[in-house]
Amino acid sequence: MKAALQAYVDLINAGDADGVTALFAPDAVIEDPIGSEPRSGPAIAAWFADTVAYQTRITPVAPHRGSHADEALLIFDVEFTPPGGQRLRIRSADACRFDEEGRIISLRAFWGPDDIQPA
Amino acid sequence: MKAALQAYVDLINAGDADGVTALFAPDAVIEDPIGSEPRSGPAIAAWFADTVAYQTRITPVAPHRGSHADEALLIFDVEFTPPGGQRLRIRSADACRFDEEGRIISLRAFWGPDDIQPA
Repeated sequence: MKAALQAYVDLINAGDADGVTALFAPDAVIEDPIGSEPRSGPAIAAWFADTVAYQTRITPVAPHRGSHADEALLIFDVEFTPPGGQRLRIRSADACRFDEEGRIISLRAFWGPDDIQPA
Repeated sequence: MKAALQAYVDLINAGDADGVTALFAPDAVIEDPIGSEPRSGPAIAAWFADTVAYQTRITPVAPHRGSHADEALLIFDVEFTPPGGQRLRIRSADACRFDEEGRIISLRAFWGPDDIQPA
C-alpha cells in the first residue's frame, strides 16, 4: 500500500494523469475534501487531468502510515495553480482503502477551509 | 476539532487519563490500530489509564488537518513503554469524527506493523 501511495505522488509530480488514474479500481470513489461530493468513474480521470493541468506538486511531509487492514495514509502538502488564479498550497492527507489487487478503491482527503492558503 | 485534537495531545502528555477520556462521547469507538478489535465504553477509560501508565508522549509531526465535514486528523509520533518492555515509537495518525457537542465519537489510528520500532 505504501508503494502505491508513493507511486501516486511520483506520477502526479511527473504529470502522468493516465498513470495515476490506473492506480484506482474501476469502481473507486474519491472524496476530496471530506464533506464534498464524491467522484467516481469518468470523473476520476477528469479529476487527474485537471490535477496535471494545474501543475500540481505533492510533497510528503511525514512517512506514509499503514494499518493492520486494507487502509493506508499519505500525509502531504500540495501546491497547484487553478485556471486564472494564484498558486495555492493545501495541507492535506489522503486516507486510502485498497482492493485485493492493490488498487485504490476509496480516497478521502483530510483538509478544511483553514488548511488552504496562497503558496 | 483541531482544538480538541490538541487537547488530546496535551492531556495525554500531562498524564491526565480522566481528562482525555472526557474528550470522548459516551458511545465512542476507538479502533487503534485500524484492523484491530474496536474498544468502547469502559474499555476506553481503561485504554487511557494504560496509556498514561506507559509514560506515553505524543509529538505532532505536521499541522492538524480538518475537513469540510465532522472529521479531522492528528498526525504524530508516539513513544511509550509497555510493562516489562523497552520503549517503543509508533509513527501514527488518528482519524477522528466528532459529534455536535465537539466530542470524539470515532477514533481510527493509521499505523501498520512496519510503523513501530524501538524508540
